[in-house]
Amino acid sequence: MIITLLTDFGDVYPASMKGVILGIYPAANIVDISHTVPRHDVRAGAFMLMACARYFPSETVHIAVVDPGVGTKRRAIAIKTISKDYGFHYFIGPDNGILIPAARSFGEFEVYEITNKGLFNEEVSSTFHGRDIFAPVGAHISRGIEICDVGKRIYDHTGMDFGKVKKMEHSIEGMVIFIDDFGNIITNIPSDAIDLKSGDFMQIENKKVQFQRSYGFCKEGEPLILAGSHGYLEIAVNRGNAANFFNKKPGDEIIISTHP
Amino acid sequence: MIITLLTDFGDVYPASMKGVILGIYPAANIVDISHTVPRHDVRAGAFMLMACARYFPSETVHIAVVDPGVGTKRRAIAIKTISKDYGFHYFIGPDNGILIPAARSFGEFEVYEITNKGLFNEEVSSTFHGRDIFAPVGAHISRGIEICDVGKRIYDHTGMDFGKVKKMEHSIEGMVIFIDDFGNIITNIPSDAIDLKSGDFMQIENKKVQFQRSYGFCKEGEPLILAGSHGYLEIAVNRGNAANFFNKKPGDEIIISTHP
Amino acid sequence: MIITLLTDFGDVYPASMKGVILGIYPAANIVDISHTVPRHDVRAGAFMLMACARYFPSETVHIAVVDPGVGTKRRAIAIKTISKDYGFHYFIGPDNGILIPAARSFGEFEVYEITNKGLFNEEVSSTFHGRDIFAPVGAHISRGIEICDVGKRIYDHTGMDFGKVKKMEHSIEGMVIFIDDFGNIITNIPSDAIDLKSGDFMQIENKKVQFQRSYGFCKEGEPLILAGSHGYLEIAVNRGNAANFFNKKPGDEIIISTHP
Repeated sequence: MIITLLTDFGDVYPASMKGVILGIYPAANIVDISHTVPRHDVRAGAFMLMACARYFPSETVHIAVVDPGVGTKRRAIAIKTISKDYGFHYFIGPDNGILIPAARSFGEFEVYEITNKGLFNEEVSSTFHGRDIFAPVGAHISRGIEICDVGKRIYDHTGMDFGKVKKMEHSIEGMVIFIDDFGNIITNIPSDAIDLKSGDFMQIENKKVQFQRSYGFCKEGEPLILAGSHGYLEIAVNRGNAANFFNKKPGDEIIISTHP
Repeated sequence: MIITLLTDFGDVYPASMKGVILGIYPAANIVDISHTVPRHDVRAGAFMLMACARYFPSETVHIAVVDPGVGTKRRAIAIKTISKDYGFHYFIGPDNGILIPAARSFGEFEVYEITNKGLFNEEVSSTFHGRDIFAPVGAHISRGIEICDVGKRIYDHTGMDFGKVKKMEHSIEGMVIFIDDFGNIITNIPSDAIDLKSGDFMQIENKKVQFQRSYGFCKEGEPLILAGSHGYLEIAVNRGNAANFFNKKPGDEIIISTHP
Repeated sequence: MIITLLTDFGDVYPASMKGVILGIYPAANIVDISHTVPRHDVRAGAFMLMACARYFPSETVHIAVVDPGVGTKRRAIAIKTISKDYGFHYFIGPDNGILIPAARSFGEFEVYEITNKGLFNEEVSSTFHGRDIFAPVGAHISRGIEICDVGKRIYDHTGMDFGKVKKMEHSIEGMVIFIDDFGNIITNIPSDAIDLKSGDFMQIENKKVQFQRSYGFCKEGEPLILAGSHGYLEIAVNRGNAANFFNKKPGDEIIISTHP
């Protein structure tokens, strides 16, 4: 069975998690989603996980650890999603919201607090629950224990959303959630929130921007707006870096004038 | 069977490709070649792929996506190579030349245009054919469909070479193809183009450079030229960065005076 | 069986090693520990390997190549560790000390010089023994040959330690071994060298620093000292970068005043 990993750990530390997983479940097929989530940015991690999770087959276990509160009182949780289109997915991580948008994207889900110490590593450090709690619990679930074996079901987990989208007559206001490695700006505005067709012009901060189906329909260096592969409006520059072009970073407001 | 991935996608996006592959073919053994090909640099990607591909066993499927033209009219292709030394290899990617030097390095090869939509993801985005076309087609080939099931054989694929090498009486002129992570300069000059032995001196831009078998034969900070592990002349600085030392970047001309 | 890889190769080159391994042993389960060890920093590589290795199950083969002397007279070695708690582990790499702290952390170990050319790639380059010697030897060991088949046992391998720790009445002096991707400073001082409890104050270079169990017990931007997950004292800044805060780099001296 597949186990995905998403963390802000960078180098080295993820390997210890993999060692622990393979010690418990040698047949686990481990796939890295990312280990370079912007440090401590729970929201960016939540977006990355949501963008990828549904492309994995049923019964995948997703372990996601962006966890500035490690070792404090924050809870550890495990989630099971049930969906007739996508089957079962499991999510393991801290109760800080990182798992929620991905879980919600599958429809119904159940949340359990992880308290069963019998599933943890023998020694649990105060700073590396990724290795000592989340990895072994994920391995045990992937191997076949019931989710209710991790602890009690809870109903008061920490939520997470990507901010409000405000639609007006001539514009739409949203937020930058994420800058990808191309410098593309991913917004929190669902692609179907505006009715657009290729060649339509919009305006972002005094700059005319064309709506196109893909990058290559614009000249090199020209900005465009498109329906991103993740389902959200994306602002790009053909062969360029939109985040630099528009001087935007995660959390910034973005206003798109639809009738410039 | 093994499926390799080479892209300029950086983080997160390759994981979606892996999810799609494992959904179709759970036993696939996925190996990353690189996801940090210099953005949109089809030639650098082609070189990296060529440098690695022949070290994989027969029946490996190589998916390579550096694809600034995604979503436009550029074709998608699949290649089968036949070689008595290396068996069969498959290459999947855009028809922009990225697959060609690797395919050619195996000898004979056949090119097919990918048009069979029955092999694609149910929904095909305009910006992420890596996930929606190349990953599922690669997974189906790895799992055992015939290459001719992807579409018709073509004979007019886009070519790719690494530029001319000009050999004169006292010098050889070529081009920088690639700078590796050590700052080593990889040229397009085949190692056997010059007859060199350890300790011979050459000159590159007014600097004396020794030919050596490996880095450690020079003093720290000293430049050297060597027969790279990929079969091309490589210019290095022992424990240093040759690209900075000689101020070279991919595409730059390089002149080696063999009788300085 | 599991094969781990740790190198300073960055991109592309590790994939050739993986191709070679899978050609010899298709069922190998390859796990990357790191390919971004600071260039040529054998000591940092040795620390990373030691920090991870014991989390892998028995019979794991660890291939570690930070190898500025590649192609010169330095020997290639293979190590077998025997431990009643951790079973057998194997370590393959250059004889420059990189394998030693990890091997020592398991207790008893035996060192063999790798000389059996029958296990190497057919062609051995002068610059890439990771691909041509260490990868195939590791694959053969993982697949089941005896360690004594690689060559003769030796007793004069190159050692490696992490420097002296000097304990005085009111202070303890050690060294920075490693800066992790969070900017946390990992020292060579074992966590149990000082008897500390949460909330105790110490002093590092005129700055008061609290001992805590984890990052989140301090305010954002505040420094702390903690028992790292690797067993060594670690200096951190909650949601910040300790290496910048204290202006420290690997190899620097560190003095902790325990009675400030």
